[in-house]
Amino acid sequence: MALIEHNHNLPFNIIRCSHVEYGVKDLDASKDFYVDTMGFIESERTSDALYLRGLEEKNHHSYVLRKSDKAEVLALGFKVAFDKDLDLLHDHFHSLGLPAEFVERHAEERTLAAKSPLGMPLEFHAKQTRVPTMMRAFDKYKGLSPLRFDHINCFTPNCQASYEFFVGQLGFKLTEYTLTDKGDMWAAWTHRKGNVHDMALTNGKGPRLHHTGVWTASVNNIIHLLDVMASKGYVMNIERGPGRHGISNAFFLYILDPDGHRLEPFNSDYLTVDPDWEPLGWDLRDPKRQTLWGAPAPKSWFEHGSVFQGVPVKESDIESNPIIGGYEDLA
Amino acid sequence: MALIEHNHNLPFNIIRCSHVEYGVKDLDASKDFYVDTMGFIESERTSDALYLRGLEEKNHHSYVLRKSDKAEVLALGFKVAFDKDLDLLHDHFHSLGLPAEFVERHAEERTLAAKSPLGMPLEFHAKQTRVPTMMRAFDKYKGLSPLRFDHINCFTPNCQASYEFFVGQLGFKLTEYTLTDKGDMWAAWTHRKGNVHDMALTNGKGPRLHHTGVWTASVNNIIHLLDVMASKGYVMNIERGPGRHGISNAFFLYILDPDGHRLEPFNSDYLTVDPDWEPLGWDLRDPKRQTLWGAPAPKSWFEHGSVFQGVPVKESDIESNPIIGGYEDLA
Amino acid sequence: MALIEHNHNLPFNIIRCSHVEYGVKDLDASKDFYVDTMGFIESERTSDALYLRGLEEKNHHSYVLRKSDKAEVLALGFKVAFDKDLDLLHDHFHSLGLPAEFVERHAEERTLAAKSPLGMPLEFHAKQTRVPTMMRAFDKYKGLSPLRFDHINCFTPNCQASYEFFVGQLGFKLTEYTLTDKGDMWAAWTHRKGNVHDMALTNGKGPRLHHTGVWTASVNNIIHLLDVMASKGYVMNIERGPGRHGISNAFFLYILDPDGHRLEPFNSDYLTVDPDWEPLGWDLRDPKRQTLWGAPAPKSWFEHGSVFQGVPVKESDIESNPIIGGYEDLA
Amino acid sequence: MALIEHNHNLPFNIIRCSHVEYGVKDLDASKDFYVDTMGFIESERTSDALYLRGLEEKNHHSYVLRKSDKAEVLALGFKVAFDKDLDLLHDHFHSLGLPAEFVERHAEERTLAAKSPLGMPLEFHAKQTRVPTMMRAFDKYKGLSPLRFDHINCFTPNCQASYEFFVGQLGFKLTEYTLTDKGDMWAAWTHRKGNVHDMALTNGKGPRLHHTGVWTASVNNIIHLLDVMASKGYVMNIERGPGRHGISNAFFLYILDPDGHRLEPFNSDYLTVDPDWEPLGWDLRDPKRQTLWGAPAPKSWFEHGSVFQGVPVKESDIESNPIIGGYEDLA
Repeated sequence: MALIEHNHNLPFNIIRCSHVEYGVKDLDASKDFYVDTMGFIESERTSDALYLRGLEEKNHHSYVLRKSDKAEVLALGFKVAFDKDLDLLHDHFHSLGLPAEFVERHAEERTLAAKSPLGMPLEFHAKQTRVPTMMRAFDKYKGLSPLRFDHINCFTPNCQASYEFFVGQLGFKLTEYTLTDKGDMWAAWTHRKGNVHDMALTNGKGPRLHHTGVWTASVNNIIHLLDVMASKGYVMNIERGPGRHGISNAFFLYILDPDGHRLEPFNSDYLTVDPDWEPLGWDLRDPKRQTLWGAPAPKSWFEHGSVFQGVPVKESDIESNPIIGGYEDLA
Repeated sequence: MALIEHNHNLPFNIIRCSHVEYGVKDLDASKDFYVDTMGFIESERTSDALYLRGLEEKNHHSYVLRKSDKAEVLALGFKVAFDKDLDLLHDHFHSLGLPAEFVERHAEERTLAAKSPLGMPLEFHAKQTRVPTMMRAFDKYKGLSPLRFDHINCFTPNCQASYEFFVGQLGFKLTEYTLTDKGDMWAAWTHRKGNVHDMALTNGKGPRLHHTGVWTASVNNIIHLLDVMASKGYVMNIERGPGRHGISNAFFLYILDPDGHRLEPFNSDYLTVDPDWEPLGWDLRDPKRQTLWGAPAPKSWFEHGSVFQGVPVKESDIESNPIIGGYEDLA
Repeated sequence: MALIEHNHNLPFNIIRCSHVEYGVKDLDASKDFYVDTMGFIESERTSDALYLRGLEEKNHHSYVLRKSDKAEVLALGFKVAFDKDLDLLHDHFHSLGLPAEFVERHAEERTLAAKSPLGMPLEFHAKQTRVPTMMRAFDKYKGLSPLRFDHINCFTPNCQASYEFFVGQLGFKLTEYTLTDKGDMWAAWTHRKGNVHDMALTNGKGPRLHHTGVWTASVNNIIHLLDVMASKGYVMNIERGPGRHGISNAFFLYILDPDGHRLEPFNSDYLTVDPDWEPLGWDLRDPKRQTLWGAPAPKSWFEHGSVFQGVPVKESDIESNPIIGGYEDLA
Repeated sequence: MALIEHNHNLPFNIIRCSHVEYGVKDLDASKDFYVDTMGFIESERTSDALYLRGLEEKNHHSYVLRKSDKAEVLALGFKVAFDKDLDLLHDHFHSLGLPAEFVERHAEERTLAAKSPLGMPLEFHAKQTRVPTMMRAFDKYKGLSPLRFDHINCFTPNCQASYEFFVGQLGFKLTEYTLTDKGDMWAAWTHRKGNVHDMALTNGKGPRLHHTGVWTASVNNIIHLLDVMASKGYVMNIERGPGRHGISNAFFLYILDPDGHRLEPFNSDYLTVDPDWEPLGWDLRDPKRQTLWGAPAPKSWFEHGSVFQGVPVKESDIESNPIIGGYEDLA
């Protein structure tokens, strides 16, 4: 059995995942997609970056789109409760022999840049510049009407090890999971903020970012985004869905931004704050796991991901499995 | 019993109600309300008028907002099947001793301007300038995402007589109605196009326009309009709702434009093309008639209406009734 | 150019398509699917048939499910305005050299059973037994909350000829269409009741029934049906969608009943009562035609259909076309 | 300024509000309302009580409806993280000179029954009997499709003192509030679980329970509940709404159960886990506070509440205020 105990004794408090920094090739193209089509609020545009947030958010940014030659991921961002947590995390990473150093980041008071054992670039902050919530400015809602950044989902070549790191060393809590036939973790959904996930980990060539999730108020907003994307010529950026995941119960859509970074607009997961909320295990062969409604995911959804800048990618330690995602059976 | 037979033998074919022409005091204020807030498409702006249409419509306009000193109604518009129907209607009105003459109207090929016995200004056309439907341009959807003009609802001081005119002389078909204790028509919903109504008639001081109805694709669009109106400072323009009518089964909202003209964004009525679809009679004392959910309509909703330009208003022939609308009982 | 004029001079009046009669192998299985899962109202169950209707309908039935050894289609039903129209249609079919005779049908006053030139079994009635609408009994709504039967869609091996029959001989009106490179009709949507279609015709092996369409009040009802079907073990009966058609603008879902008869729960088409509403032509190569959001239809959707009892099926006269539906390009 | 600091140093951890125990006069009537109309899941029925839960919940109950001669509130329930927290809370209440003792409660491992300074009956548990979530059993969804118990809202005659108790002594965090002209707390929304509130406190005759809040997945479920209530004869149990609160951003409805206990089905609040999420202060005179759309609440909404069993009710220390809720201005 590959499940480990939740670690209640860590001295620091990671509140939630907070943002992602994407390298993008054309800021204007990104603006058309994220702001004019999806409906994100532009907090600030600098000479080389767009800082965006959801309608509900008071943090300065949940998406940083940085002009780059490559469509890479520069950082996965997390918010901690207090400034002192940054120092505690700094020491914790060092005690694990992992890189962690304080860096300058625009609109953040202090930022700790660290690395997971596989090299995922994790950045922690306690305070971003505060900006007004646009939640009550309904005349600004458009496209998806994205409310907030919700989660990060990564491919990892060693899901068991990655799961043990996030749960055992950073205090994430398991909500749903799939095991391999040998009892190792195949995919794990872990959270800090009280819903299904802040960080999901899936077996596959990696480390790479699979997608970031964006919460919206209703199914209807996701349908509207699809219609708007079709009308604006983004039909090829629609990769999968809409559908209902068995895992997480989410009504989902997967789309690709102009650089191929994947986003998941979604709605309807559930509350997980109870310490006795039992993690839900799925059978790798259960097709409802991927989608409750049976429509298979396209091959790209299982294979394509965004690389982390400067981080080498490895094949999974688990041998290629014909039932990955079950899509071959269903197609 | 005040019900009369549907007249199947009229030689002309009125297809549907098509538009309304409102006198408005400030075209810019009207544009902010109708276009920027509600989401109507601006077909054309002339020196003294705004011509608007719903997202689905290919006719040039369903709302004409004409600069005026008074907040009056200038015309109720109807579309007939063919050009010849205009001539047949011309003769028909004359045979009834009612005014009817051909007039020039912007973006209409030929227009017949007539008067109902009580003086309602009825205008008929067969062809408006054709414009593109915006139905598939989902990136243009906003506010209510209004799809099409749906119906006209008028106060009349003699509902029985008005009902007999529209059904007996113009070929409208009754779908729902309320009778007085004496068996006269208190309120009547009549249609041409195959849903609940093109023209509704309600007892009250008149003739006056109570409201025009606008069809949208879903309940959620109406909720969104409410939020947008609140955000844009139009909270005092929200008069009643949202709610569900017993009559017509509509999910409704009543709002007032900057000149006090009332509109009813709505969704969910039903198909009435079957000749054997029996009209539904309501008891004047049944509170579900006005609203299925019990919330009383405000007094203004029973009293306020828009006058027709130059048409004198009379009190209803039916004495004031304490159960009008049932709101006194419910309030 | 393969478009013909609408025939305004026919003496009879077909109001709309009204029902379908399916041969089904197990009435209990059908009841579980149609009544307990989809939410149709059971009007009556006889020893060998289930008679169902939508929540809004006052006609006795819109689906007749008859116990049979084969999963066939027994009849396509249409409602005419008046009893006299049946006699006029009887003579009209005979004048065309087509079979037409009066038959006994449960809960119909008089029924004319006729055949299209290709053998489609068309049945006409003016009066079915009247039953109460359940539209206001919201506590009976479940599953899809199906409101009414909306349309019929058939494969035909000679789409041009079938189109000419329905438009030229029965008075249907064209709303949308696709032509072959040679200018012949590839697919045609035609209506009587004032929305996009009562009868759609698509090139393919036939005549066969592709699907029947069911109107519901909102997108959300379709999403809920998907969730309910998944929960009740009907995931393999979900064939395609949800999605948005370019054609008709419908938000659609395609599902298969226990006998493989296809249904299309849908929402959001548009009003077509205007005689000058121009038919919309689609390019056979435009992928938006099939689906606005880009997800390809499965192969079964292009190939599978229900045969008409005793009617031989022919291959299409048009040679196999690699761009049929565009799915090969997209898959 | 009446705001106090959040107390981060309390040794125990209250996870969230978890349930309410209502005294009801007729269990069958309650079952018809809560289970057959609203759609709660019946976890268990004993000789004198109904134990209900939302579709998502794994705790044994979130509503206990106990047969009683009076329509009273017997307990407000809260879940703590671990069993040890119960002992810490026991000592904490005693150190404050407040009653707290361990009692037997059906389906709870250990229960601490305590009293707030004003006498509110607060019960704490760490473990209820675990039952299956019905979240994925979509065929069981009906009425409101209630997912989970969300919050408790109480009248208090001394809002400032009640606020200081919940924030200062129990560790609740302030999210929104209204102050009197003198700078005292008029109303306060406080949470533990990371959304707008677990416990709201409003100035008024008390202590009394104003309502309990129930989370559902979408606006459409609330509209459907209204339709179902109207169809089942519960129209007089609809008290207020639907509408949008300025406070909390919730799309709300207020209904009364057969004993007059008020419930608030709602959707759409926001995430408040960030320690630097600033509480939002409202002006007592701002009508958007109560409702973004302008419709005034009925008088009953400001006056009616459920008493706590055996707890005397006092008038508010704050003198009667003509702007309470602003409804006099708006009506």
